[in-house]
Amino acid sequence: MSFKAYYLSPEGDLKRELTAEEIKAAFESRQGLLWVDIAETTEEDGKFMEQTFNFHHLAVEDCVSPLIHPPKIDDFDEYLFLIVHGINYAVESEVVETAEVAIFLGQHFVVSSHNYPIYSVEAVRQRVEDDSRPMRRGTDFLAHALVDTLIDNVMPTIDKMSDIAEEIEEEVIHHPQQAILEAILKLKRSTLRIHRVMAPQREVLNRLSRGEFPIIREEAQIFYRDIYDHLVRIEDLNQTIRDRADNALATYLSSIANRQNETMKVLSIVATIFLPLMLVAGIYGMNFKYMPELEWEWGYFAVLGFIGAIIIFALWRFWARNWVTWGRRRIIRVRLFAVEPKKLVGYIGHLAKRRDT
Amino acid sequence: MSFKAYYLSPEGDLKRELTAEEIKAAFESRQGLLWVDIAETTEEDGKFMEQTFNFHHLAVEDCVSPLIHPPKIDDFDEYLFLIVHGINYAVESEVVETAEVAIFLGQHFVVSSHNYPIYSVEAVRQRVEDDSRPMRRGTDFLAHALVDTLIDNVMPTIDKMSDIAEEIEEEVIHHPQQAILEAILKLKRSTLRIHRVMAPQREVLNRLSRGEFPIIREEAQIFYRDIYDHLVRIEDLNQTIRDRADNALATYLSSIANRQNETMKVLSIVATIFLPLMLVAGIYGMNFKYMPELEWEWGYFAVLGFIGAIIIFALWRFWARNWVTWGRRRIIRVRLFAVEPKKLVGYIGHLAKRRDT
Amino acid sequence: MSFKAYYLSPEGDLKRELTAEEIKAAFESRQGLLWVDIAETTEEDGKFMEQTFNFHHLAVEDCVSPLIHPPKIDDFDEYLFLIVHGINYAVESEVVETAEVAIFLGQHFVVSSHNYPIYSVEAVRQRVEDDSRPMRRGTDFLAHALVDTLIDNVMPTIDKMSDIAEEIEEEVIHHPQQAILEAILKLKRSTLRIHRVMAPQREVLNRLSRGEFPIIREEAQIFYRDIYDHLVRIEDLNQTIRDRADNALATYLSSIANRQNETMKVLSIVATIFLPLMLVAGIYGMNFKYMPELEWEWGYFAVLGFIGAIIIFALWRFWARNWVTWGRRRIIRVRLFAVEPKKLVGYIGHLAKRRDT
Amino acid sequence: MSFKAYYLSPEGDLKRELTAEEIKAAFESRQGLLWVDIAETTEEDGKFMEQTFNFHHLAVEDCVSPLIHPPKIDDFDEYLFLIVHGINYAVESEVVETAEVAIFLGQHFVVSSHNYPIYSVEAVRQRVEDDSRPMRRGTDFLAHALVDTLIDNVMPTIDKMSDIAEEIEEEVIHHPQQAILEAILKLKRSTLRIHRVMAPQREVLNRLSRGEFPIIREEAQIFYRDIYDHLVRIEDLNQTIRDRADNALATYLSSIANRQNETMKVLSIVATIFLPLMLVAGIYGMNFKYMPELEWEWGYFAVLGFIGAIIIFALWRFWARNWVTWGRRRIIRVRLFAVEPKKLVGYIGHLAKRRDT
Amino acid sequence: MSFKAYYLSPEGDLKRELTAEEIKAAFESRQGLLWVDIAETTEEDGKFMEQTFNFHHLAVEDCVSPLIHPPKIDDFDEYLFLIVHGINYAVESEVVETAEVAIFLGQHFVVSSHNYPIYSVEAVRQRVEDDSRPMRRGTDFLAHALVDTLIDNVMPTIDKMSDIAEEIEEEVIHHPQQAILEAILKLKRSTLRIHRVMAPQREVLNRLSRGEFPIIREEAQIFYRDIYDHLVRIEDLNQTIRDRADNALATYLSSIANRQNETMKVLSIVATIFLPLMLVAGIYGMNFKYMPELEWEWGYFAVLGFIGAIIIFALWRFWARNWVTWGRRRIIRVRLFAVEPKKLVGYIGHLAKRRDT
Repeated sequence: MSFKAYYLSPEGDLKRELTAEEIKAAFESRQGLLWVDIAETTEEDGKFMEQTFNFHHLAVEDCVSPLIHPPKIDDFDEYLFLIVHGINYAVESEVVETAEVAIFLGQHFVVSSHNYPIYSVEAVRQRVEDDSRPMRRGTDFLAHALVDTLIDNVMPTIDKMSDIAEEIEEEVIHHPQQAILEAILKLKRSTLRIHRVMAPQREVLNRLSRGEFPIIREEAQIFYRDIYDHLVRIEDLNQTIRDRADNALATYLSSIANRQNETMKVLSIVATIFLPLMLVAGIYGMNFKYMPELEWEWGYFAVLGFIGAIIIFALWRFWARNWVTWGRRRIIRVRLFAVEPKKLVGYIGHLAKRRDT
Repeated sequence: MSFKAYYLSPEGDLKRELTAEEIKAAFESRQGLLWVDIAETTEEDGKFMEQTFNFHHLAVEDCVSPLIHPPKIDDFDEYLFLIVHGINYAVESEVVETAEVAIFLGQHFVVSSHNYPIYSVEAVRQRVEDDSRPMRRGTDFLAHALVDTLIDNVMPTIDKMSDIAEEIEEEVIHHPQQAILEAILKLKRSTLRIHRVMAPQREVLNRLSRGEFPIIREEAQIFYRDIYDHLVRIEDLNQTIRDRADNALATYLSSIANRQNETMKVLSIVATIFLPLMLVAGIYGMNFKYMPELEWEWGYFAVLGFIGAIIIFALWRFWARNWVTWGRRRIIRVRLFAVEPKKLVGYIGHLAKRRDT
Repeated sequence: MSFKAYYLSPEGDLKRELTAEEIKAAFESRQGLLWVDIAETTEEDGKFMEQTFNFHHLAVEDCVSPLIHPPKIDDFDEYLFLIVHGINYAVESEVVETAEVAIFLGQHFVVSSHNYPIYSVEAVRQRVEDDSRPMRRGTDFLAHALVDTLIDNVMPTIDKMSDIAEEIEEEVIHHPQQAILEAILKLKRSTLRIHRVMAPQREVLNRLSRGEFPIIREEAQIFYRDIYDHLVRIEDLNQTIRDRADNALATYLSSIANRQNETMKVLSIVATIFLPLMLVAGIYGMNFKYMPELEWEWGYFAVLGFIGAIIIFALWRFWARNWVTWGRRRIIRVRLFAVEPKKLVGYIGHLAKRRDT
Repeated sequence: MSFKAYYLSPEGDLKRELTAEEIKAAFESRQGLLWVDIAETTEEDGKFMEQTFNFHHLAVEDCVSPLIHPPKIDDFDEYLFLIVHGINYAVESEVVETAEVAIFLGQHFVVSSHNYPIYSVEAVRQRVEDDSRPMRRGTDFLAHALVDTLIDNVMPTIDKMSDIAEEIEEEVIHHPQQAILEAILKLKRSTLRIHRVMAPQREVLNRLSRGEFPIIREEAQIFYRDIYDHLVRIEDLNQTIRDRADNALATYLSSIANRQNETMKVLSIVATIFLPLMLVAGIYGMNFKYMPELEWEWGYFAVLGFIGAIIIFALWRFWARNWVTWGRRRIIRVRLFAVEPKKLVGYIGHLAKRRDT
Repeated sequence: MSFKAYYLSPEGDLKRELTAEEIKAAFESRQGLLWVDIAETTEEDGKFMEQTFNFHHLAVEDCVSPLIHPPKIDDFDEYLFLIVHGINYAVESEVVETAEVAIFLGQHFVVSSHNYPIYSVEAVRQRVEDDSRPMRRGTDFLAHALVDTLIDNVMPTIDKMSDIAEEIEEEVIHHPQQAILEAILKLKRSTLRIHRVMAPQREVLNRLSRGEFPIIREEAQIFYRDIYDHLVRIEDLNQTIRDRADNALATYLSSIANRQNETMKVLSIVATIFLPLMLVAGIYGMNFKYMPELEWEWGYFAVLGFIGAIIIFALWRFWARNWVTWGRRRIIRVRLFAVEPKKLVGYIGHLAKRRDT
């Protein structure tokens, strides 16, 4: 069993590293605020939860099972059981995994459970260790802190995806190649993943913020509503990235087609110029007895001149038809114009500051 | 008639292999718990159901008819009539068929009917034979066991589809060929099939879990809600597989276009290099009387050298324009980045364990 | 005026071929069950309906007008006015038309009207002629028989479309050509047509089956619900056919691209092998005075051997790069796997039987 | 100010060409039926409306403003303010514009306003001039006549679009060219335009027909419901045309790809046959001293025969691989099958007749 | 702190440039109308808002934070907190940014806050400076003026996008090139952006206009409804631009394919004509001892004539198959037909005028 437990007594003292017995005692006192955080939840932890807190078997099973569970709220009268999803972000990694935290929220206790270490839970725990602030305003505010930090952790991923979208947009114009397709599709799938994880949470947070559950007091509801607004923003940014990925895909496919056009043009130009000239050379290579031109003193030079003239004429024709573009400036006759959202500036800094308020 | 019948008397004894008369007696006693499972339901079975249990003609017809019936609940006051769909999974097969079970759920009886053997019903029957456990908590829990096992049986198919999606993603990059398209389209159609079978069941299980029918007691509702959550998870995983199939399709199509580009490039390079040189050879093959170069002692070697120089120059130009890539390392300038769900681990084992609790 | 009228007196006698006066008398008696079926409805029939039954002008106009009217129910207190759509199936035809029947449903009368002969109405009429069964259970059951038979008639068309989808899937792999595109697009448009005709009827039948209208008694509602379930099944099958058509389209387009690839490869291989060799031959066809190789005794055979060696080497290279596939077995490295619905078996026979119950 | 005003006194006399004063008097009498139709509404007309009828400033502004206003109903207690859209059809024109009419509907008055002449309003006005019929049944029926005629005027446009869809389907198979693409896209955009104009009106007419506003009496509601049904029909036909345009687009794109395939085949065949033969001719054109074949008497004819044989053999191979199709009948192995709506017959005639009833 | 404050005393005098103390006094008097506009809102401004007006911390945070916040209304009983989005249009710029204004709306005060200068707020401020008109009708009308002007400012952008769509449609037909793709995709993305910004505001304005909040009096509601109608119009125009961009994209892609077809045709024609002729020349360049034609006096001229005849014949064949189009008029056999909305005329002028009413 690997849990961390904190108890804020009604007098305002913070106890740390409670034993299983102390947890049970604190739980049964029905006052103060008890927070138990269980990481890498095992079968044994499950039994502990059922015995100590008397949680419903199915809810505990959702904590223990290594499967992914969709976001939800179950109301067991005595407590709410929440499953919330976020992203467990680590800056350097190439693959970012979505993370799931289960929260039991009662009048006097919060039990959080997760199958692997979660950075955002760690951050809240750190703030509790520092000055117990997140626990001072009640269980609904503590649960809010856990959910809020988890969901806000999606932002750096969105930021990184936005950067990658920019790289892709740059690259797809200048070096369209199969590898960029992979990057585009990965980006697109990531946006789909985030959408699939975030969208159902709006319903969960909407219910939490509209006074449906008495455990969430009125003054806390607006803070849940605030998370809801964050979800809307995340979805909006995420959708914008998807649009950019779609556009990059269109540009990529059009680039391939254009490049093939270029290849074909080169081929056509070469064949159109040289095949007829080779015929001319072939004709004067024939061995007929009677071919008057062969006797002419300047015949050879005439043919050479003719060949040169034809080449120049053909190139000029191709140039006029815009197949050859030497010396031509590329002219864009259409105004480029875009409506853009205001740039996100200083997000991370702002986030850090906000957390302390 | 091929039915298996079990009766758990109010005293807690389990009777097996009841005859038609015993079934009728048990049904009319209006106590204990009677379970009749009818496989490969015939017209005769239909008549038996109508006469013994007095079921509505239309419901019985839905059991007898070999057609597919959409999932639904009909409330006949005395009993509920459910149609639920799942997958009749057999590991080795190439084609997996969706399966349909009809369940009559009354206060004291459950009658299940299906037109072909269903693995998941068999599994529940086995557990009843072993220790009668699934029947001990009442008809609503027995019906839950039947539905839950049926729907959980979709997971191995999802797992297999996920594996195939991985194979396809690998293969589509290294050996894009028409055969892979077939695999992609089959996979995509399978996800559509599963979506079409699973999506309407969410409505059915939502109704079962929200206290609309008194036959489902409050303590059982949360278990139906649990099946609902499984459906949400199945749909999410299924959707992810569909996204992967879509991406594989995009990669495949782009690969074809790229390969064609490669083919065209080879052709263009060859023609661009050799056609002009052939003209040169053709010119010096002309039979003009007066061609001064032909008399030169080193003329022939000069032409050979000129030809060689031109070939090298042309290859260098193509290399510089990135048409020829000898000796170049392929550089991906774009970071690859993906947001992924946590991997499903140990699902089957977990599933087995859970069933016994 | 071309109508067929039947009257089932309260005593249970069936009168046939009533005159207009007898119809009016039967209508005004307000007992028994009167069924008037008007085919190829004219202006004159319209006036007859308004005068005899006092139907609302707009409803009668919908019967008379040759236009298509969307499915609907209008409640005129005294009677319901239904418009229902189905398919007027004739096995041998290449084009199948959607059909529309208007039904006035009162306490003691049913008036059906259609602008052209409808096979399904004819079938009900035949059963009435045989033993008056469809009329014995009341007007709501008679109207049910009319609607049910009409909508069930869509199934043979779905069956035929399913067969055609199979043919197309076969053909698109082995003989992709422009003609198959036409077949695919026709099939797809047919599914759209059926969807557009069937989807709005679900709403109509839902309203009929949930007790909104007192004319439909409770025992009849479940039969209307049964038609609703048929509509759901038809939509599901129809959607499956559409998916198959979409996949066939993807296969077709990919086949075209692949074939073009093949064509280009042939061209590239031929050019890559022969252009350089032609240059060699051209070089030794030059007329330079001093070309030492020409004097060598075995020069000619050396060149021939060189040419042969180059051809063999080139073919080997192309074989290694998989451009040439002689003697190679086509290997599919990806498992093919599909989730399929159970096959529809013995549908028509079952349908026939069901109708007599 | 350019308005036409009619007043039907309670005694049933129709006054025409009322002056502004007479209008004010009629309005203030609060009996009879006053209809004022204002065309090419100016600021001055706006002031007149505000002063005479005391209409709300925002509603009047919607009449005066040359912008497009979405369809809507505003309920100002004393009167309803409707904005309805249709099509201002003129048979010979290439561009058809959507038209907007604003209607103020009170107990005793109807004021209609539009910024340009509307054919359908003109038609109603003509019928009033003829026999005052549309005004005899009350303001709700007069407003119905205005809306109904406006929306029915969409049908000829739908008819014309249907004809054009047929032309396009014909042309796209036999002469696929860039110009047809323009026609397809224009058609598709027109269906989108019509959809965007018609769809929001269903909501407006639904509200008008369900007794929400007391100004619309019960006997008139069903007539508004009838317009609703027309809107459904228009949307259905419109959607069918869009499907046909989509199919034509698919056919067009596939035709382009097929034609390119044909071009490539010609090229490949020519190159495959002639390049090797040119090599043969090139070889015997070499100037080696010792080339035994050159001395043979029949060498030349042997080469000619060899060349001829190769050409015939190659063509036969291409024919066998189906690249060359001389003398082959094109065989379609797939049944063509379509589900179609009944054809619209005699629409215009029917429309004319209906209007007089 | 950079705020502009105005106070309209109950006596109707307008005070300008209030200090922080005067603001606090005016706020606490609970009469008159106080408007404070805070631009480039800083942390310090945030504290000022919290201290002076006692606004909720989360609302103030939304004002201070540089992030984008989705449109919303939060009801804090004492005041409403609105976030509204528009476009901060500057005619000459290539990139137009969406703009966000936060508004606190109380019985006697309006506080608006934005992180950068907003042209539309400036315009309202100017009108207040001029004659205080927007403040004379109450806080709900002042807030309406702010929202209305902000949203109307989207129109010039829509106008410009419409112009660009026209340019693109012109250009895509005559000069399809990669650069136009960029313009199309930018335009499309702009429409998506506008849609994403405008769509959620419909919900906000719907709530404001239906009497949900007592602060908005009944006479003001219809003015908010008017903004709602503007949003509907903006979305409609925006959607039309998106359709045009989609069509331009289809035209562009088809143009590329067509051009490639042209290129291939040139190549095929050249190869088909010249390769066989080169073979002929090659044959007569062979050095066989016995080649009778070489001895014929007119052999050379016969070959030249043959070559010329073949060229002419081939060109005629290609002309007949429509590959060569010299001297042919391009014939469009399909009627072009479009349904269009009435053109927006004189928008800007009208807008200006309306604002003063």
